[in-house]
Amino acid sequence: MTREIRLNAFDMNCVGHQSPGLWRHPRDKSANYKDLDYWVNLAKTLERGKIDGLFIADVLGVYDVYGGNTESALRNSAQVPVNDPLQLIPTMAHLTENLGFGLTASLSFEHPYTFARRLSTLDHLTKGRVGWNIVTSYLNSGALNIGMPAQTRHDDRYDLAEDYLAVCYKLWEGSWEEGAVVRDREAGIFTHPDKVHPIRHDGPFFKVPGIHLSEPSPQRTPVLYQAGASSRGKDFAGANAECVFVAAPSKAVLKKYVSNVREAAARAGRNPRDVLVFNLQTVIVGETDAEAKRKFDEYRRYVSYEGALTLISGWTGIDFSQFQPDEVLRHRKTDAVQSAVETFTTIDPGKEWTVREMAEWVGIGGFGPLFVGSPETVADLLQEWVEDTDVDGFNLAYAVTPETFEDVVDLLVPELQKRGVFKTEYRPGTLREKLFGKGPRLAAPHPGTRYRDLAALAEPAVLNL
Amino acid sequence: MTREIRLNAFDMNCVGHQSPGLWRHPRDKSANYKDLDYWVNLAKTLERGKIDGLFIADVLGVYDVYGGNTESALRNSAQVPVNDPLQLIPTMAHLTENLGFGLTASLSFEHPYTFARRLSTLDHLTKGRVGWNIVTSYLNSGALNIGMPAQTRHDDRYDLAEDYLAVCYKLWEGSWEEGAVVRDREAGIFTHPDKVHPIRHDGPFFKVPGIHLSEPSPQRTPVLYQAGASSRGKDFAGANAECVFVAAPSKAVLKKYVSNVREAAARAGRNPRDVLVFNLQTVIVGETDAEAKRKFDEYRRYVSYEGALTLISGWTGIDFSQFQPDEVLRHRKTDAVQSAVETFTTIDPGKEWTVREMAEWVGIGGFGPLFVGSPETVADLLQEWVEDTDVDGFNLAYAVTPETFEDVVDLLVPELQKRGVFKTEYRPGTLREKLFGKGPRLAAPHPGTRYRDLAALAEPAVLNL
Repeated sequence: MTREIRLNAFDMNCVGHQSPGLWRHPRDKSANYKDLDYWVNLAKTLERGKIDGLFIADVLGVYDVYGGNTESALRNSAQVPVNDPLQLIPTMAHLTENLGFGLTASLSFEHPYTFARRLSTLDHLTKGRVGWNIVTSYLNSGALNIGMPAQTRHDDRYDLAEDYLAVCYKLWEGSWEEGAVVRDREAGIFTHPDKVHPIRHDGPFFKVPGIHLSEPSPQRTPVLYQAGASSRGKDFAGANAECVFVAAPSKAVLKKYVSNVREAAARAGRNPRDVLVFNLQTVIVGETDAEAKRKFDEYRRYVSYEGALTLISGWTGIDFSQFQPDEVLRHRKTDAVQSAVETFTTIDPGKEWTVREMAEWVGIGGFGPLFVGSPETVADLLQEWVEDTDVDGFNLAYAVTPETFEDVVDLLVPELQKRGVFKTEYRPGTLREKLFGKGPRLAAPHPGTRYRDLAALAEPAVLNL
Repeated sequence: MTREIRLNAFDMNCVGHQSPGLWRHPRDKSANYKDLDYWVNLAKTLERGKIDGLFIADVLGVYDVYGGNTESALRNSAQVPVNDPLQLIPTMAHLTENLGFGLTASLSFEHPYTFARRLSTLDHLTKGRVGWNIVTSYLNSGALNIGMPAQTRHDDRYDLAEDYLAVCYKLWEGSWEEGAVVRDREAGIFTHPDKVHPIRHDGPFFKVPGIHLSEPSPQRTPVLYQAGASSRGKDFAGANAECVFVAAPSKAVLKKYVSNVREAAARAGRNPRDVLVFNLQTVIVGETDAEAKRKFDEYRRYVSYEGALTLISGWTGIDFSQFQPDEVLRHRKTDAVQSAVETFTTIDPGKEWTVREMAEWVGIGGFGPLFVGSPETVADLLQEWVEDTDVDGFNLAYAVTPETFEDVVDLLVPELQKRGVFKTEYRPGTLREKLFGKGPRLAAPHPGTRYRDLAALAEPAVLNL
């Protein structure tokens, strides 16, 4: 196989995840998000196509920057209502065999002691097919509702993330030794108490004296995903992440990002190839280029201008309701607006983007690149991006669900397989083994492995439980 | 039908929930708790028997009072390891049609803003078949791990519970009006913004300004369960609970408790019959009395003395490792020990309980009464208890799982059905409709209904979001 391409499906427990307005399309089923039948069917479709994983985003909060209120988000179902992603995964895993599952969970909304038990439980129930997307940020509207002040400073956030992960690593990797659980019916010993250790964590944000409540799960630490675009974020991802998500709209931006992440991994003493980078991507595939173009034109008619700007406003912190649709934002002078404009400019350096054009770009699948064409055309583009940017795979957003994913599975995947760049069978084992061909546990020099021998950790054991 | 009897199954996402040591029994399958197949099979068995619900207990913490450490709990798998109960329910609900599900969740471990979304999600995914057991207490060993001081004072706990429930009621009942979600594809309106309200909650423990993140689920507020044995606890249950759990080992204790709960409901302005009281109960059923007795004698051989005392120590706060097995505790003078002894004494007023006898009592199914016999014998006893105590039903613990539940479904249920005291079909609709014949929403004068009109609430709207 020449350079293998990885494919994830990107979704959220809400309506029209990154395609504002397309819930109105007659074939869109995303409004069935409350029904497990919808999710089970999606998972089976993805598994039929040997897709690596279904990745479920989450936002705890409402996009209330646009117009300074929640009206547009509600009217356009721009990621609200939004339900808990965690509870979707066990059923999908129970009724499939190989598909991986990625759960998004922000560090800000649950204590690491209880969160670690949730993830161990999920890894048990999925038989080791779960990953965790470590999110360090959040919407201010969500933070306010749990009694937190507005978004913490960027660097503080990563200090907290490091303390949070240390707790998780200690619970997952260190608290229960291999062989602690013996289930010896004759001797009447379920667990050897001397092989289970209180973690005695005494960090700047969290104090966790006790043992982990769950016995070791197949992967112990789930496959770790992260999406850090800042310098500190890339360092954190380079050290900890096994998979990295990015939403780079152009090859230039993506190539630089991939290179930075691999360098950060190398600086952390890891093999730069042990980090898989996935770029956000929308593909509209038809039997022919013309059919794909017809489909795309049909989808575009359903994009909600207001819904798209509601998402962009939330992501950038700029209230786009103050601009006119035909306005070209390079005339605006604030730093935040310039930064948003610069990002769009990388997509097409010669282009002057109007607000309406920005909304239309984001309206079908969000901020990633958009490829429209026959299986051959789209496969050519994906291979070109892999070659030119060193990216490992793509995190596929939908325009219309499950149609976008069905087209990927039925049309694009066979073409990629024919070219020898996409697997025809899943690897056996856990998600980590499927993705990396090794596992099921983290391997040195990943920092999580340093927490296996708690006694050897340099930290003072201030608590003596 | 003469007085209907309700039956719940009682379990936990752990090994040998309330039958310490019986995981060693060759037919016990509780060590398969990490596997969804085990839970799906259990749910299907219970549904075949028209059992009202599967109730999943939870403990976030370790039983570390016995011997002052976690050794015995680990060795005997006395409710550790223990996994998250929430993640079991969607799959069981997806693969059954009528069985209800009760989730235990302590108010101490998750913020009401995020918890309310979890329960709304669960009610959506189960199509309205979920109940919540409101737990106000916790093990100190758990609290320490999330940075809390030891157990809060009893009355403070209920102050917190009332504030917590107010947040939940506002989110579930008040934030989204009926008809807010229109899904109008033509007009491009998913949700009417003017029918979704920020709750502006400004309570003593929680400040939650925003809107609920989930659209209304079939029941909005899940069926509310509670188990409050103190005076304040019974008042809280009388006002809020639709089902109440108790673990009364004798008819005298149970009768008094049922009467107190119904009085508390009446004081809160509710119909005393709108609260269903379930007593913890273990039944060992065989084709004949002799066969049931043989089964019971077989089970008893597997009880772990140390495991049982580990549970009793955790429940009472007394370290039972300090006593000799043949010791009679009435000679001990501390208040806590006397209180424990008094509870046992109600089971058999003439009896002087040794420590070993206490362990053996608790070792098969915990602290509830234990009935051993043919279907006729056990049905007689259950009916007698209903008549003499006014209890509505029983929360059935297992000795050996799923065997105890299979015996109930295959032997006891047909006998109860023959007598006309147990349903032969589930009622249609949500769990609330199945249990009460009305619903799916809370009905006045339940206090949750007062939060439907947020504008009419007397509290100051300090936040203007």
